[in-house]
Amino acid sequence: MADGSTGEVAVVLHPLHPPGVPEALAGVPGIRLVRPPDPPAVAEALARAPVLVTYLWDDDYLTPTLRWVQSISAGTEQFPVGRLAAAGVVLTSARGVNAPAVAEHAFALLLALTRGVVMSVRRAGTWRPFVGEEIGGRTMVVLGLGAVGGEIARRALAWDMRVIGVKRHPGNYAGPVDTVVGPDRLLDVLAEADVVVSALPDTADTRRILDARALEALGRGWVVNVGRGSAVDADAVLAALEDGELRGVGLDVTDPEPLPPDHPLWTHPRVVVTPHVGGLSPRYGERLATLVAANLAAFAGRGVWTNRVPPT
Amino acid sequence: MADGSTGEVAVVLHPLHPPGVPEALAGVPGIRLVRPPDPPAVAEALARAPVLVTYLWDDDYLTPTLRWVQSISAGTEQFPVGRLAAAGVVLTSARGVNAPAVAEHAFALLLALTRGVVMSVRRAGTWRPFVGEEIGGRTMVVLGLGAVGGEIARRALAWDMRVIGVKRHPGNYAGPVDTVVGPDRLLDVLAEADVVVSALPDTADTRRILDARALEALGRGWVVNVGRGSAVDADAVLAALEDGELRGVGLDVTDPEPLPPDHPLWTHPRVVVTPHVGGLSPRYGERLATLVAANLAAFAGRGVWTNRVPPT
Repeated sequence: MADGSTGEVAVVLHPLHPPGVPEALAGVPGIRLVRPPDPPAVAEALARAPVLVTYLWDDDYLTPTLRWVQSISAGTEQFPVGRLAAAGVVLTSARGVNAPAVAEHAFALLLALTRGVVMSVRRAGTWRPFVGEEIGGRTMVVLGLGAVGGEIARRALAWDMRVIGVKRHPGNYAGPVDTVVGPDRLLDVLAEADVVVSALPDTADTRRILDARALEALGRGWVVNVGRGSAVDADAVLAALEDGELRGVGLDVTDPEPLPPDHPLWTHPRVVVTPHVGGLSPRYGERLATLVAANLAAFAGRGVWTNRVPPT
Repeated sequence: MADGSTGEVAVVLHPLHPPGVPEALAGVPGIRLVRPPDPPAVAEALARAPVLVTYLWDDDYLTPTLRWVQSISAGTEQFPVGRLAAAGVVLTSARGVNAPAVAEHAFALLLALTRGVVMSVRRAGTWRPFVGEEIGGRTMVVLGLGAVGGEIARRALAWDMRVIGVKRHPGNYAGPVDTVVGPDRLLDVLAEADVVVSALPDTADTRRILDARALEALGRGWVVNVGRGSAVDADAVLAALEDGELRGVGLDVTDPEPLPPDHPLWTHPRVVVTPHVGGLSPRYGERLATLVAANLAAFAGRGVWTNRVPPT
């Protein structure tokens, strides 16, 4: 609903958001940014504003005024997609906004393991050389070829890795990865892999996809998870590190989150955990603002929606 | 000197070498590998063998029989280049053999800092999210564009970084980096940089090239050293971390080596140190063997030398 006096659209920003987002959104022409001080004040603000930019959802936010919800996250599993659609409210995700940062994070975790950086930090003060590994020439299986998986695959290919993608509908894939298979081929391609990186969302099909059987198929290799923690069976990982061939595990996401302080993954010599920060970046706000500006045009009837959920 | 009975060339391998090298050299056709049990036995073996593969040098190794020294290292500053030439002994370096591993190591150090992996390992058990950085879109200055610097630059370009090279003779450069300048422009290009990576050898011109002035020119950025430790002024680095804008430092090489156990670089929150392992890789032997096979042909008069020092 345009503001009668200025032609600006009132956009409510939920108080939980990555740093830099308010500043970036405030710079989008045509927006009057409303910043409720706390979550309960969000619903109140939405009584008079048609747009919500948010990571979290509460049913109170579905006011008669609401017309468009822009998610701050790539996934939208927290939203009542059907009810929003039924109420005529457009939902758009932030797919792609965090992809470059998450892709770099995946390699930060992998290289910290392959090059012995994790070990070196843990035994700081000790000058004891060791033979690290090379990822060039090795095979990486990327689970999920959305925006994040795509950025990971592109970087791996550019660094002389062989890449195999696993995707629910491999026929839909258009990108630089030569070999893309469906989930039914998972164990086959893990058997060829040195590294598996999960960029999967949390769905019924992806939960515990990296279980004991999958880790056994992988054999001597590394696991990195930058998708959702539910994809990895942590007990199976710990068992494979002890009794199997698993060489190292890098997790930016865990199940549950936060990972309890006394969880053995925190201190296992061949595991590194970061606290779900892969998507955080000073450039997040800038890229979200670009997306919001494009969708603001669609909201005003002057363009097509980007990242609409479900796709139309 | 070919072995009369078999036509094989006796090649002496110094006992100090990276893992995998003996196995790889033993697989080179035309070589009879001689493996002295300790350094003193090397000179003895060279009384009857024309080829030495070694990282270390001792003047006793210059026997009348010696015709070719294949260094195991990229640099050859440990060898008496002039005296070897005067004695008609060919010296070849292992330039390029370690380059892929060192390039990956440089990014392992950099990403461990930019993505907060170092911090996460140090405070394991604490789930406290933070905003990491992106290297994509940023500017990297690479000091030295030899085999290692070239591999670093190629990887940075492929990951959407802007790269500026600094090279003694910029006019000689042929490669993918658009902007290559001489050392006289160092401070200018550091002023544009977010990251500086040194892949420099130890020479009179490179010692302490990253001093207080250089770090001041860099300002808010990261330093990575995978060349030789002497290029970095450690006191200036510690001062810039405390009083300046320096954001993080990753060192695989130090001055002296080993870095003393109580040196403040080991535990500084924004520093990560690895014990000169950048070039170590299970694939080192395989690549060295390929080089030795090529040079064995040159030794037999059937080809040109690779990596001859000085170049002819």
